[in-house]
Amino acid sequence: MTETELAIGIVTISDRATSGQYADRSGPAINDYFREVWGERWSPLLRLIPDEQPVIETTLRELADVHHVPLVVTTGGTGPAVRDVTPEATIAVSDRLMPGFGEAMRAVSLTHVPTAILSRQIAVIRGRTLIINLPGSPRAITQCLDAVMPAVPYCLELLGWPFWETNPQRLVAFRPK
Amino acid sequence: MTETELAIGIVTISDRATSGQYADRSGPAINDYFREVWGERWSPLLRLIPDEQPVIETTLRELADVHHVPLVVTTGGTGPAVRDVTPEATIAVSDRLMPGFGEAMRAVSLTHVPTAILSRQIAVIRGRTLIINLPGSPRAITQCLDAVMPAVPYCLELLGWPFWETNPQRLVAFRPK
Amino acid sequence: MTETELAIGIVTISDRATSGQYADRSGPAINDYFREVWGERWSPLLRLIPDEQPVIETTLRELADVHHVPLVVTTGGTGPAVRDVTPEATIAVSDRLMPGFGEAMRAVSLTHVPTAILSRQIAVIRGRTLIINLPGSPRAITQCLDAVMPAVPYCLELLGWPFWETNPQRLVAFRPK
Repeated sequence: MTETELAIGIVTISDRATSGQYADRSGPAINDYFREVWGERWSPLLRLIPDEQPVIETTLRELADVHHVPLVVTTGGTGPAVRDVTPEATIAVSDRLMPGFGEAMRAVSLTHVPTAILSRQIAVIRGRTLIINLPGSPRAITQCLDAVMPAVPYCLELLGWPFWETNPQRLVAFRPK
Repeated sequence: MTETELAIGIVTISDRATSGQYADRSGPAINDYFREVWGERWSPLLRLIPDEQPVIETTLRELADVHHVPLVVTTGGTGPAVRDVTPEATIAVSDRLMPGFGEAMRAVSLTHVPTAILSRQIAVIRGRTLIINLPGSPRAITQCLDAVMPAVPYCLELLGWPFWETNPQRLVAFRPK
Repeated sequence: MTETELAIGIVTISDRATSGQYADRSGPAINDYFREVWGERWSPLLRLIPDEQPVIETTLRELADVHHVPLVVTTGGTGPAVRDVTPEATIAVSDRLMPGFGEAMRAVSLTHVPTAILSRQIAVIRGRTLIINLPGSPRAITQCLDAVMPAVPYCLELLGWPFWETNPQRLVAFRPK
């Protein structure tokens, strides 16, 4: 990884995928998404962990504090079921909440399915790392990423990271002025 | 109440209705709403209490922890006035916040009245009980319930409750996949 | 200031404007806005302070608790950059959160720029004072104020302040019933 290369943490949070009950399709879907929108100038840091709040917190802290990853996306664990604790873990490691991400992702998902209101996904900043919760299903992941990604490169620049080129045919990064 | 019958807590929170200054019209409006959408397979647990945060908290805890009610809806006390403390009481008994409910209900209300942004209504989960704050006026109650109810049966199933039939002419419950 | 005159606190939060690196254009833009919508029956209390959380908190407390200002609007410091701490200061002095303001302002801004989701602006009530965070740019300020101001006069009345006339050609205040 060169100094200006973008590292992206991709964290799949799922009891069943972790135990091998089924294959993780969400992490690879996110990986494919970023390969398409960022071009080649990034490297993934992949994690597959169970729906355990302490494990999620440790993983997010490690990616932010040890690996200094500019962007971390999680998938899974944002629903109302008793094992869904991803938002609680994300808030626990947060320095600052970014309420607009959750609002925008739910609003877009709501145009597809009424159950979008059940998603508790949020985004936060820890140090200089932006952490975004995504839903579990690959289709919803793409909808949510399309909704927020135009703002992400500028957000990373405001957090002190360099200017990264995106693939303009897939993602037009918006920068004010 | 049979084992698979749905119990719904309906909590009117109003100093004036409690003291008899006027009749509670909001609780009955909610009762009528659920009679229409759920058919006959449910029973209401009605409460009428003042805008006192400790009383509201005790009532919500009793419905969730003692009566094991799957769904509790409150009406009243969500505005900015000094006696409006329903959201604070609801957050105080919450295990997990459900931000999408408040967002969706305000967004729908905002298409009717600009003062919808003054509503501080939220939804939370306590144990396996979903608690939803509704506004005070019967018309706004219907608008808000129509906005969120398609997602509620699936939410209750994710919380471990059985599949309940709704009246398909009035409420199409959405369940992913 | 007569007894029924409206005082509005206008707080510009900006390291660079405070140090004289550039002129504050946001505070004057807000001042112009209220001159237009409220007519002459109000007086501004202007503040220009750096992005320091303790200073922001002290300023908000002084306007609410000492000057008993019904309405305070801030501009600046709501983004994701490390110096942006206006929402944290606002929450710290809050008695009650008003989530609908931030949601509505971001939703309106999002129709203009995708980076609207990066704004962390909120509104709160402290005692009988409504405090609203606005973004930093004059254009975004107008968009956000236009989105929420129709509900503000009624909100102030619910907080126990008198009925104030607005300029009906510029602002139609909505009051239910």
